[in-house]
Amino acid sequence: MPASYAYLGPEGTFTEVALRTLPEAATRELIPYVSVQSALDAVRAGEAEAAFVPIENSVEGGITTTLDELVAGAPLTIYREVLLSITFALLVRPGTELTDIKTVSAHPAAQPQVRNWLRTHLPDATWESAASNADAARLVQEGRYDAAFAGEFAAARYGLRALETGIHDAENAQTRFVLVGRPSRPAAPTGADKTSVVLWQRDDHPGALRDLLGEFASRGINLMLLQSRPTGAGIGNYCFCIDAEGHISDRRMAEALRGLKRICLQVRFLGSYPRADITPAEARPTLPGTSDEEFTAAADWVARCQDGRF
Amino acid sequence: MPASYAYLGPEGTFTEVALRTLPEAATRELIPYVSVQSALDAVRAGEAEAAFVPIENSVEGGITTTLDELVAGAPLTIYREVLLSITFALLVRPGTELTDIKTVSAHPAAQPQVRNWLRTHLPDATWESAASNADAARLVQEGRYDAAFAGEFAAARYGLRALETGIHDAENAQTRFVLVGRPSRPAAPTGADKTSVVLWQRDDHPGALRDLLGEFASRGINLMLLQSRPTGAGIGNYCFCIDAEGHISDRRMAEALRGLKRICLQVRFLGSYPRADITPAEARPTLPGTSDEEFTAAADWVARCQDGRF
Repeated sequence: MPASYAYLGPEGTFTEVALRTLPEAATRELIPYVSVQSALDAVRAGEAEAAFVPIENSVEGGITTTLDELVAGAPLTIYREVLLSITFALLVRPGTELTDIKTVSAHPAAQPQVRNWLRTHLPDATWESAASNADAARLVQEGRYDAAFAGEFAAARYGLRALETGIHDAENAQTRFVLVGRPSRPAAPTGADKTSVVLWQRDDHPGALRDLLGEFASRGINLMLLQSRPTGAGIGNYCFCIDAEGHISDRRMAEALRGLKRICLQVRFLGSYPRADITPAEARPTLPGTSDEEFTAAADWVARCQDGRF
Repeated sequence: MPASYAYLGPEGTFTEVALRTLPEAATRELIPYVSVQSALDAVRAGEAEAAFVPIENSVEGGITTTLDELVAGAPLTIYREVLLSITFALLVRPGTELTDIKTVSAHPAAQPQVRNWLRTHLPDATWESAASNADAARLVQEGRYDAAFAGEFAAARYGLRALETGIHDAENAQTRFVLVGRPSRPAAPTGADKTSVVLWQRDDHPGALRDLLGEFASRGINLMLLQSRPTGAGIGNYCFCIDAEGHISDRRMAEALRGLKRICLQVRFLGSYPRADITPAEARPTLPGTSDEEFTAAADWVARCQDGRF
C-alpha cells in the first residue's frame, strides 16, 4: 500500500495544518489534491493510503461535499478525526496599512467567519472569493488583491505580513477533519469513540425518522450529528448522516446497528474511531442497563428462559 | 405597507422566474437584492412587504444561508412556497460552437447539476464561478467567458444563444422558494398545508431528538424536512429546522407544537402555508385517531371524566 496521504489542498491551508497534528502523518508523503472528490477518488483507486478532508464546521455545519462523497460511490471508512480551532489572520504585502485595503479575498467558507470583523474594520472593502485561503494569499502576493484572510502560518510562505491575527466572528469556531481509507477492521475501542453511519428510510410515514432514532435512544446511545442529505430523488427525499457516541464493538452499538439494518432500506457503516473532543477519562458513563455486561446478562437470561431454566 | 416584494437578484435568474408564477407578484413592484440577507432585512426594516428567496433544492438540500437568516434575527413568517424545476441552457454568443468553448461559468450551486454533462461534452473546459447565473451570462456577453449555464430565459436579455437546453444531471431537479413576510395570522388551511418550525433542544442526552420527533409522530404528523443548523456554540451544537405536514389550526398540529413548547429550550414558529407539491385533493388521509373530530371527542371525554360523568 502506498505510504501517502491525499489531502484537500493546496498547501498552506488549515487542512494541511490539521493533518500534521496526526503522528502518523510524519511518516507519510502528504499530497495535496484540488478537491475533496479527487482526494477520496485517489484512495478508492489505490493511489493513496488515506485521504484527509474537512467534514463538519461549527459555523456551517456538516460539509456537504464531503458527506455526499462518503454517502455515494465505493464505500470508505473513517479512521481518525481531528478538531482544529479556526482563527484568521489578515495577510498583506509588507508596507500595506489597513487604510490601503480596497479588496479582500478568501475561500467563500471564510466569509461568515470574518463578516462582522469586516463590517467594523473594513466596511468599504470589496470581497473577492478565491479557490482557497492559500490561493487568496498567493493572489495578494501577486498584487491582484490587497489583503487575504488565511491562517497566520500562510504568511511566511507567500512573503506576506499578518496585519491582524485572531479574527473570528464566532467563539469556539472549529473545523472537524477526518482521515478516510478503504474499508478494513476498525481500531479497537478507546473508551471515547464515535460511530458514523448513513441511513436510508424504507418509506416515508409519520414517525419513520423517530423510529430510526429510537434504535439509538432505546440503547442509551447519544447522537452527535444528524445531517440530512438529498438522495437525488427530488425535493423531500433525504438520507441521514449520523454520528453516534460509542464503538461498533460495544454491545449496545452493535445491537442498535442490527436494529437499523432490519428496519432501514439501506445502512452504510462509515467507521468507528476515537473522538477528538474528549479523552476516555472524560467520557460520560453509560446509562443504567446499557453496559456490555448488562447486555450479556440479559441475553443469557433469555437463553435460559428459552431453555426452560428460568 | 409598501406594495413591493424583495427577491434574491439579479434579474433574469430562476428566483425571478419562480416569483412571477405567484399571482400576487403581478400587482407588486419586484425589487432585486444582492443577497438573501439583504432581501430579508428589507422586510424586517419595513422597506418591502415580503421577500422571495430559495430555501431548499433537490441536489444541495436545505439552503443554509436562508435557513440561518430565518433561525436568527427578528422573527419572519413564511406565507407561500413555489416549486420550480431547474434545467440549464448553455448560453453562448452568436456564432460560438461547442468546439470553440474553453471557459464556462455559472453560480457555484449550478456546478453539481451540470458536472456530468460537462464531463461528457466539454471535458477540457475550465470552470469559472460567477456571483449568479445571470451574471455569468453577462460576462459571456462581455466576452470574458465563452459560455454560461443559466435559464434559457436569460438568453434574450444578454443577446446570447442557447447552444443546448434541458441540461440537468439529476432527474426531478427542483428548487423550493418561499415568500417571507413579517409575522401575522397564517392564512386559513387549504387541506394541503405545511408548517415550518425551528427547535432548540433543552439539553443533550440519549433520545433527546427522538423525543422531539415523537411530538409529531404520536399525533400522526409526517415530516417533510429536518435540517440541522449549528447554533454557533461550537461543533456538535445544533438546532433543527423542521417542515411538517399540516396547518397550525389543525388540532393535531397545535397539540404537537404545545408539546414541543413544553419540552424544548426554544421553539420558533415559521408559518403554516399551502403546499406547492400537491393539491388538497391529493393530500393523504389523516391517520386513524388524529382528526380534529377525534381530538375534540377525546378532550370532551377527559372533561367528562374530570367532572365525574364517565
